[in-house]
Amino acid sequence: MKAIGVEPGEGRPRILEVPRPTPGAGEVLVRTHRVGVDGTDHEVIAGNHGSPPPGEEHLILGHEAVGVVEDPNGTGFSRGEFVAPTVRRPPPGGENEYFERGEADMAPPEATVERGIDGAHGFMSEYFTSPAECLLSVPPETAAWGFLVEPISISEKALELAAASRSSFGWDPETALVLGNGSLGLVTVAMLVGSFEVYCLGRSDRPDPTIDLLERLGATYVDSRETPVPEVPSVHEPADLVYEATGHAKHAFESVDALAPNGVAALLGVPEPWTFEVDGGRLHKDLVMGNKAIVGSVNSGPAHFRAAIERLGGFPEWFLEAFVTTVAPLDSFEAAFERTDGTIKTAVAFDEP
Amino acid sequence: MKAIGVEPGEGRPRILEVPRPTPGAGEVLVRTHRVGVDGTDHEVIAGNHGSPPPGEEHLILGHEAVGVVEDPNGTGFSRGEFVAPTVRRPPPGGENEYFERGEADMAPPEATVERGIDGAHGFMSEYFTSPAECLLSVPPETAAWGFLVEPISISEKALELAAASRSSFGWDPETALVLGNGSLGLVTVAMLVGSFEVYCLGRSDRPDPTIDLLERLGATYVDSRETPVPEVPSVHEPADLVYEATGHAKHAFESVDALAPNGVAALLGVPEPWTFEVDGGRLHKDLVMGNKAIVGSVNSGPAHFRAAIERLGGFPEWFLEAFVTTVAPLDSFEAAFERTDGTIKTAVAFDEP
Repeated sequence: MKAIGVEPGEGRPRILEVPRPTPGAGEVLVRTHRVGVDGTDHEVIAGNHGSPPPGEEHLILGHEAVGVVEDPNGTGFSRGEFVAPTVRRPPPGGENEYFERGEADMAPPEATVERGIDGAHGFMSEYFTSPAECLLSVPPETAAWGFLVEPISISEKALELAAASRSSFGWDPETALVLGNGSLGLVTVAMLVGSFEVYCLGRSDRPDPTIDLLERLGATYVDSRETPVPEVPSVHEPADLVYEATGHAKHAFESVDALAPNGVAALLGVPEPWTFEVDGGRLHKDLVMGNKAIVGSVNSGPAHFRAAIERLGGFPEWFLEAFVTTVAPLDSFEAAFERTDGTIKTAVAFDEP
Repeated sequence: MKAIGVEPGEGRPRILEVPRPTPGAGEVLVRTHRVGVDGTDHEVIAGNHGSPPPGEEHLILGHEAVGVVEDPNGTGFSRGEFVAPTVRRPPPGGENEYFERGEADMAPPEATVERGIDGAHGFMSEYFTSPAECLLSVPPETAAWGFLVEPISISEKALELAAASRSSFGWDPETALVLGNGSLGLVTVAMLVGSFEVYCLGRSDRPDPTIDLLERLGATYVDSRETPVPEVPSVHEPADLVYEATGHAKHAFESVDALAPNGVAALLGVPEPWTFEVDGGRLHKDLVMGNKAIVGSVNSGPAHFRAAIERLGGFPEWFLEAFVTTVAPLDSFEAAFERTDGTIKTAVAFDEP
């Protein structure tokens, strides 16, 4: 069968011919429907992040997948059911406490592998197998967009951690500032607009489809070249919640300035080392006197996938149509990896001609 | 009646002669038993923090108090009952949402005054009044140490916020690193030793009574001159919980390095502005990949006072005897404000000759 993979340092993905996998005990064989592409894939392709499975030269890409059960193999799934797989699996040494209690997303990096990213093949192949407990059922109505379940689940987890950090007192957040108008930032804007006054910060010139999209959702665009993060409270209003999706390390610190008292900043981007000056005394004091919090968040677990499937079902069709700018069939998969003006979210379709 | 107060910039406290207060509706008249002294008092005395009530030249000090109800004034209290008062009161403009829902500790600085610190007289007078809802009953057995309820409550709140931030997953913390072997650090060590393997960081030379005390409690002393905060994990072990009680701003950032995956750092110290370099990229990445959190915490509310009263009752008598190094009668109150070698926690006794 065909797969899309990369060798570290190769710089661009290519079609591989690999054997169709056979499900082991407790595993399901899934026929791949669509697989999304995100910034992590581009990091892996560039050779800046992740690795093939031990002893292998290439890594099959893809961690945002939706597929159709081809062989339930005695599990509770039914042939023809749509499913989305979680990403983390036990490392070669076997299960550990995080997997045993169903919280692989809380495992430290050395206690897990990540399919399509680090140490395990991904889902960009015509078929894949997965333990049944790592598959979540997706309703047929939303299956075409099911590759968005994984990225939405990333935000579900971050928002859950952020809310938990404020759960010991009466927190009634009203305003959210999303840092980044990339695909993760935009899908998070779509998640928040019903409950928050949402500001979304970017550095794009108008006209820009991401600005159009976030404004149509009801959010306010903030151009960081005109209004840097620390100035958002004076120009607009302080944020009860900051969601950092750019990986720009200074934003982690500037978030404290953007927060209202008792606010929380959720960090999701993964920056490279970068040393710079901060007024650490002022930031420390402001965190204390304002009862503010910062929470880092990575990956997501089955509960976040379930929340994401529910959330996806509530998104308006116009948003999904505008948000997903490319669904490339396998024989022209390269289009899903191009990042041209106007590209927001892309995916590869494995079962479309 | 006599009170202990200070004028901003005066540099040292003195005895004032002030009228005995009369309780208003819903207020209790309390005869002061003992009032503790802490770093905030020294900041106020130095003129670096706080202010007298509007229009007044002096501030009566004291925010860590225990007293005896002299006149219940129709409230639910009884004459002779020991009570400890909370610190925050509504600002001159009146109550706001934080006070209305009993969470004055979550009010931003402009939405509250603090008795004995900022904008309102404290409890260092022979009598004080307080609204009944700001008084917590203290059992007679622990009343002699009741001035410790307020500082313990500060830690109760910080530990509650820290635990809340980890409440969305299975967090089973085992190790704690307390930064600072001052009185707040030491009392927190005493709170944690039953449930955590505790490390306490300081920069004191042996022999030192704080080191003796923390070791007798079962904690391990870490000399920051030999083992800086980021090296604690390699020299000892990573901390699930870091409790920052020094106000040394670099510690807020170094805490991230000291944390185990899924750990949380609670910040309590209040530093001055101080700009320095940090590897913000590495810290940001480590917060994300390790699902780590930082929570700032200030002040405490009635629920934390109740927890502190319970906690105080469980402290061994030997600890309290060793921890409180000075209880100075009013006529030699200066001894409670001296910071000599061997001083840990001090208080002024208003009703002892």
